[in-house]
Amino acid sequence: MSLNILGYAAQSSESALGPHQFVRRDPRADDVVIDIEYCGVCHSDLHQARNDWGGAIYPLVPGHEIIGKVVSVGSGVKKFKAGDRVGVGCMVDSCQHCSSCEAGLEQYCKEGMTPTYNGTDRHDGQLTLGGYSEKIVVSEKFVLRVPEKLDAKAAAPLLCAGITTWSPLRHWNVKPGSKVAVVGLGGLGHMALKLAKGIGADVTLFTRSAGKEQEARRLGADHVVLSTNEQQMADVANHFDLIIDTVPYAHDLDPYTATLNLDGTLVLVGLIGQTDPAPSTASLVMGRRSIAGSLIGGIKETQEMLDFCAEHGIVSDVEIIDIQYINEAYERMLKSDVKYRFVIDMKSLKATA
Amino acid sequence: MSLNILGYAAQSSESALGPHQFVRRDPRADDVVIDIEYCGVCHSDLHQARNDWGGAIYPLVPGHEIIGKVVSVGSGVKKFKAGDRVGVGCMVDSCQHCSSCEAGLEQYCKEGMTPTYNGTDRHDGQLTLGGYSEKIVVSEKFVLRVPEKLDAKAAAPLLCAGITTWSPLRHWNVKPGSKVAVVGLGGLGHMALKLAKGIGADVTLFTRSAGKEQEARRLGADHVVLSTNEQQMADVANHFDLIIDTVPYAHDLDPYTATLNLDGTLVLVGLIGQTDPAPSTASLVMGRRSIAGSLIGGIKETQEMLDFCAEHGIVSDVEIIDIQYINEAYERMLKSDVKYRFVIDMKSLKATA
Ligand SMILES: [Zn+2]
Ligand SMILES: [Zn+2]
Ligand SMILES: [Zn+2]
Ligand SMILES: [Zn+2]
Repeated sequence: MSLNILGYAAQSSESALGPHQFVRRDPRADDVVIDIEYCGVCHSDLHQARNDWGGAIYPLVPGHEIIGKVVSVGSGVKKFKAGDRVGVGCMVDSCQHCSSCEAGLEQYCKEGMTPTYNGTDRHDGQLTLGGYSEKIVVSEKFVLRVPEKLDAKAAAPLLCAGITTWSPLRHWNVKPGSKVAVVGLGGLGHMALKLAKGIGADVTLFTRSAGKEQEARRLGADHVVLSTNEQQMADVANHFDLIIDTVPYAHDLDPYTATLNLDGTLVLVGLIGQTDPAPSTASLVMGRRSIAGSLIGGIKETQEMLDFCAEHGIVSDVEIIDIQYINEAYERMLKSDVKYRFVIDMKSLKATA
Repeated sequence: MSLNILGYAAQSSESALGPHQFVRRDPRADDVVIDIEYCGVCHSDLHQARNDWGGAIYPLVPGHEIIGKVVSVGSGVKKFKAGDRVGVGCMVDSCQHCSSCEAGLEQYCKEGMTPTYNGTDRHDGQLTLGGYSEKIVVSEKFVLRVPEKLDAKAAAPLLCAGITTWSPLRHWNVKPGSKVAVVGLGGLGHMALKLAKGIGADVTLFTRSAGKEQEARRLGADHVVLSTNEQQMADVANHFDLIIDTVPYAHDLDPYTATLNLDGTLVLVGLIGQTDPAPSTASLVMGRRSIAGSLIGGIKETQEMLDFCAEHGIVSDVEIIDIQYINEAYERMLKSDVKYRFVIDMKSLKATA
């Protein structure tokens, strides 16, 4: 019972995404077959489709912010049944026996986690293909319950943008009253504001452009600091317990580390590459501050985050699009022209079929 | 009863150190007057005497690894009496009421700690003058008990080199079995090996030069990794909980961060300046690793460290010198030609008088 699937794929690094027919694997005993309703559009989708990071394998079907309904389950599946609303994020498998996996941090699997797309299935060696498609087949261990209270389409970005900001908030022990700052107001940044506020932190947005104040406050910021204003920056020196830096390109970290309190951490969640300019160490040494990185989140904490969002009424701000609009959407993302996440309504795929 | 004191001072950034007469303040109620027996020679002494970091005020009397005997105490002093063996490190005062001071972390005082030399006394506004001198007058809050079991001359470097490496070992929770690596084998590095080993960690020295293996093992290393050997570096990928990086000049951090385990930290204790080359963020993000800094240590933890060293028989490897040798000693330090710390026998000052 192989599944013939319609999706959207890039056929090469230069080609626009377009319709693509492919076959999903026969469900294994632990597999869940999911009818995809919505799929969020992450910057990674764009960069991998265009091979900006190297290693792209074509045809490449992006998409790792997947929300859908269970169609059927393998004989060994216990957690899910047909009709359940579920989600799939950035990972679909991991070794399950290393120290990271045993700690519920499959994203740091010592043998390498299996990404939802452009990865290699560890059992059959097949290329993984993502959520810009009708259905997906995923081991139940990597399937999340999506509470019915959550608006499905606006919950899709929680699976990547949400967990990527939630995980550092939890790991660095943010509590009510913790002083948290967010750098960058895009898909990740707007979720960081909402989640930090949901936890009860005192939340600040750093921004380079005046006029974002009202918007930032709507999203959960208690304060807005214009990072180009020296006085405003000096006013928050030695202030923050945690800074979540979501900026995806190289930028100067020193002005931000100077605003960390003793033992504070600036955690990079958007930047993979070399820092530029090079950070100076004085503010690290003089205040026992840290610059750290964090990658998405584990399955257990992703479930916690979804449950937390249901309880606190937190979802992403989304613009719903048809799959046929995806190439325009990518161009708009490059100009940061989206508030704050595109989500594909997968019903639109049927118009293609 | 002002104290006329003989010391050694730099009269300008270009001049060699030489004899210098000055006056210590009248002891205040909380002051301890200390007859200095030994003073360790720290790289900071050299850099500040030569104004390498700016801000030097002359005449500058260096020295912040001070061991001596109490001569007399002010009327309010409770912890010390004449004849006690005591030590003074890098600080002689702080605000005593900020959150850092209240946490026993006076080195991170929000109002700025008062350094032992080249600082300004917060009560009388006088320039502080360091341990290359006969006597020093210090508030009891910044005086350490030096257990009689410790060899006084070899204990002097514990007050800076010792606490600078002890504090991060404790803050980052190194325990028996923790995997700790040390970068750089100088005054700080050799203390890091001894202290980490004393705690019971599994200790590795990173070195750029073959042939240091036997020496490193004598100092406490369980393993030696040649950082220029790719295979040896690959063998310790994802391995360390904590790396104490004592190197005082800019160097590539990426090969070391790659050897950190999940949630591992590389802590800089020797480098104040810009990183060069700029660290890449991939290994931070992919392993939730951190690059941090740490500055000396608080008074409470300095006392703990001295007591720990007495219990475990840990002191510095020292070369005892006369004060008249200090300028040659500085030249040798610049060539790393010392194993591992010069300590001035202050009796030699009398030959100058
Ligand atoms: Zn993503
Ligand atoms: Zn694993
Ligand atoms: Zn020192
Ligand atoms: Zn203070």
